[in-house]
Amino acid sequence: MLGLMQDWPLTVDKFLTHAAQWHGRREVVSRSVEGPIVRTTYAELEQRAKRISNALLAMGVKPGDRVATLAWNSGRHMEAWYAIMGIGAVCHTLNPRLFADQLCYIINHAEDRIIFTDLTFLPVLMEHRHQMPTVETFIVLTDQDHMAKVDLKGALCFETLVETHSPDAKWGGFDENTAAGLCYTSGTTGNPKGVLYSHRSNFLHTLVTAQTDVMGIGSRDVVLPVVPMFHANAWGLTFTCPAIGAKMVMPGPKMDGESILELIETEGVTFSAAVPTVWQMLLQHMRATGAKFSTLKRVVIGGSAVPEAIIRAFHDDYGVEVIHAWGMTETSPLGTQASLTAELAELPYDEQIPYRLKQGRPPAGVQLKLTDDEDKRLPHDGTTFGRLKIKGPFIVGRYFKGDGGEILDEEGFFDTGDVATIDQHGFMQITDRAKDVIKSGGEWISSIEIENIACGHPKAALAAVIGVAHPKWDERPLLLVQLKPGETATRDEFLEFLVGKIAKWWMPDDVQFVSEIPLGATGKIDKKLIRQRMAGYVLPTAEPVG
Amino acid sequence: MLGLMQDWPLTVDKFLTHAAQWHGRREVVSRSVEGPIVRTTYAELEQRAKRISNALLAMGVKPGDRVATLAWNSGRHMEAWYAIMGIGAVCHTLNPRLFADQLCYIINHAEDRIIFTDLTFLPVLMEHRHQMPTVETFIVLTDQDHMAKVDLKGALCFETLVETHSPDAKWGGFDENTAAGLCYTSGTTGNPKGVLYSHRSNFLHTLVTAQTDVMGIGSRDVVLPVVPMFHANAWGLTFTCPAIGAKMVMPGPKMDGESILELIETEGVTFSAAVPTVWQMLLQHMRATGAKFSTLKRVVIGGSAVPEAIIRAFHDDYGVEVIHAWGMTETSPLGTQASLTAELAELPYDEQIPYRLKQGRPPAGVQLKLTDDEDKRLPHDGTTFGRLKIKGPFIVGRYFKGDGGEILDEEGFFDTGDVATIDQHGFMQITDRAKDVIKSGGEWISSIEIENIACGHPKAALAAVIGVAHPKWDERPLLLVQLKPGETATRDEFLEFLVGKIAKWWMPDDVQFVSEIPLGATGKIDKKLIRQRMAGYVLPTAEPVG
Repeated sequence: MLGLMQDWPLTVDKFLTHAAQWHGRREVVSRSVEGPIVRTTYAELEQRAKRISNALLAMGVKPGDRVATLAWNSGRHMEAWYAIMGIGAVCHTLNPRLFADQLCYIINHAEDRIIFTDLTFLPVLMEHRHQMPTVETFIVLTDQDHMAKVDLKGALCFETLVETHSPDAKWGGFDENTAAGLCYTSGTTGNPKGVLYSHRSNFLHTLVTAQTDVMGIGSRDVVLPVVPMFHANAWGLTFTCPAIGAKMVMPGPKMDGESILELIETEGVTFSAAVPTVWQMLLQHMRATGAKFSTLKRVVIGGSAVPEAIIRAFHDDYGVEVIHAWGMTETSPLGTQASLTAELAELPYDEQIPYRLKQGRPPAGVQLKLTDDEDKRLPHDGTTFGRLKIKGPFIVGRYFKGDGGEILDEEGFFDTGDVATIDQHGFMQITDRAKDVIKSGGEWISSIEIENIACGHPKAALAAVIGVAHPKWDERPLLLVQLKPGETATRDEFLEFLVGKIAKWWMPDDVQFVSEIPLGATGKIDKKLIRQRMAGYVLPTAEPVG
Repeated sequence: MLGLMQDWPLTVDKFLTHAAQWHGRREVVSRSVEGPIVRTTYAELEQRAKRISNALLAMGVKPGDRVATLAWNSGRHMEAWYAIMGIGAVCHTLNPRLFADQLCYIINHAEDRIIFTDLTFLPVLMEHRHQMPTVETFIVLTDQDHMAKVDLKGALCFETLVETHSPDAKWGGFDENTAAGLCYTSGTTGNPKGVLYSHRSNFLHTLVTAQTDVMGIGSRDVVLPVVPMFHANAWGLTFTCPAIGAKMVMPGPKMDGESILELIETEGVTFSAAVPTVWQMLLQHMRATGAKFSTLKRVVIGGSAVPEAIIRAFHDDYGVEVIHAWGMTETSPLGTQASLTAELAELPYDEQIPYRLKQGRPPAGVQLKLTDDEDKRLPHDGTTFGRLKIKGPFIVGRYFKGDGGEILDEEGFFDTGDVATIDQHGFMQITDRAKDVIKSGGEWISSIEIENIACGHPKAALAAVIGVAHPKWDERPLLLVQLKPGETATRDEFLEFLVGKIAKWWMPDDVQFVSEIPLGATGKIDKKLIRQRMAGYVLPTAEPVG
């Protein structure tokens, strides 16, 4: 027997229409690529987005067509998003930080027909124009004055399209499972793979993240999404803010400490979200200038593990609460957040820190499990490592065009590729990437944990740990150290440094000093390259068998 | 093109399973019908509910079968709910405050097969047992000791069923549109009609109400739902609390001021929800005893308009925020809540009061419109009255068994039967019931507004306003007054009292003094009966035409 409630498809256009009608005067403030601060409201933004929808329809954009954006966070970028999604086309967010080759690969794989772009990215687009055969048109997110200087054949001016099209467009009216957005994973192994979000998945992600224990924001908040819209939907804030009627402040291309602080103070920002490096830059600027926050109350930090120093600085020096969160492109992206339980909230702040440093707990709508390699569930005891798997209505089911094949296990969980623990309070902590974890005698050793400790040695500039083949134990850890300029050290100095800080059987079988530990494009240690470089290396403990 | 995210049906069993896994030690505390305070946890509650699911399956309960509950708010009542819904049967909440005739009508209309009941309601069930031919079994929500005293043939003991069945039951796995709950409207006109909630509608209602601007509760809250589970799902709290991991405190049968205060103080309640009369009783008790709240922060009040005195008393005397909310059985029930916008939050408290007294604003997921009788939209200017219509994924689409026929307009909106205004800040205010509003010369006059003012006359005990036929204006208002014992008054005294307080054209054409203004079962003025009594009455202004 089916219920008899209304059929009301969960499509994201409804968020902006809601904002226009019920929070119409609430502002969206942007630092424009052209320079000045630009102010608009949800009511205006919706009308302008509908004009762009009509422009796209006039260009022959059909439901399911991919339309890309290559842009910083701004009101215009949001208008492009809703214009695309509202008519059932797919908004493909391009990450300008990718190498041009990867960018071209993604554009071709997605078969993008149109690219909305900021002025910033015209040079790269012009240079590689001939490598993007599916792209018919570029729409430059600028006004006519700036457009006059643009030298890209056939490119259109965003503001001209706004002026010349009617705001009378029909949005929605399609299946809620219709594709809404496309975002490629950064692809440290193999080619980037596309995650195809649906209207339903984005809608549900929005409702979940708007909860008190997740983002905890409401209509009276002023939200600064520093996290880019091309980075997993700005963690959903471009949907959540109109849904709840929060004022938005968009940083455009400037994410340095001074620019961010200026926006926070002049616009009365109460909530922000960004990766740790942004906060590090901001805190440095704060200390250098002696500035204080007047309105900021809470920041969500994710993208990589949050250092304790950041949490403490925000809390102790500025009275701002840090919420550590974890997710991936494949999870829309919110998977967990380190909101304290009632039990932990009663502890003194210092005793809360170990939990605040973990990636946190899942909200209702996200299922997590830890398993071994045979998919057997492992205990939530805070020490047992396992593969972290995740399930829910906004978790990837398949990659675009079937890349990577079947990616869910028998219970329908997606393997995150991370290795994690979950403690008795339900706090998950990422301990390693599955491909980097060292499997020694059937037990797992976290490469990251050892290298984090080794990095603390006063002579170390960088440290990396990889697993190396071993005839008896399958794999054993090898520690690589890049010394600080001018330093010299011995193998034993580093091994002794580790004694008492890690389990005995975690002790690396050898230490190698290298002139350079290679870093990838995102600043993380490139273990794939290290493994290639160390291909011929044999551990001293690996005596030939027989 | 469809998105490629996971297929994850929105079924409510997932809330309790989530709570059991991630908030397993969080408590559900109940004042039992038997007397003592009973404590359980989400982990235990889920296991016990699954045992009851197995008991129901053993009795032959099939998906879609209606299983009723006639019970106060308690952990056992929640166990029965999840046991029923988890296996795809329909949980039909019976309102014990209905007259026995209505109760029997509803049980027969729903074709309930089983009724879970508290000890409290055994007398009424025994008396009317023969009028419930579809009911096969009663399950008494009690233990074996108390069961021994029960004299209802074939009745089963809840705790015996828990003991004798396995906790290994499969929940969910069906279409999210599957019916989950059934609740009948109070039916002031005609027979009660059934609203058949789906798993999807309850799930979405939960996510929306868990938002910061709506209920604003999280895992660290301790929630006391005084509003009964048979009253539109306790405003959703029996789903929302496990979904977010809040501790629950269930008042059982005792809702007097002393009992409620005791629970608030001993259990550390931070949030509660109830109708105004409950709060009036509580405030009276507080004043009489000089008690203060130690932990209470926020209360949601709905069900009928909140008097200013309650909002002020909570705020001024106890530092507790009141959130006025509006909804109906047909809206799951949340429609609007009077959360302040950023603009209004900056006003001094006294200037916020007029907004806090209104029924409020819709969250994303609820669409509202005001229309005239021809379904033309009316302006949101705070003064124009219109029919209030509502649309969304947790708003009724049809009544059970098709009662009442087609109930949505051409745009898919449900007519609430209320007349309301919406102001420029988006705050909706109910001004009258549509059937009571007086239509004079094409304009609408609020009967409630006039009677509220007339009631303020020192000689008035009660006042009622109805529309009476008029040859020129179609209808004109007639004021009926029940004087306080021993008082005498004239027509002109009352009309003069209204001068300056209402528009000139709203002035009643006549005043009639009556010995009794009849009240209905819920304490509201029975205008249907008044209209019957005044059937032969002709207004002095209604001079025969021709």
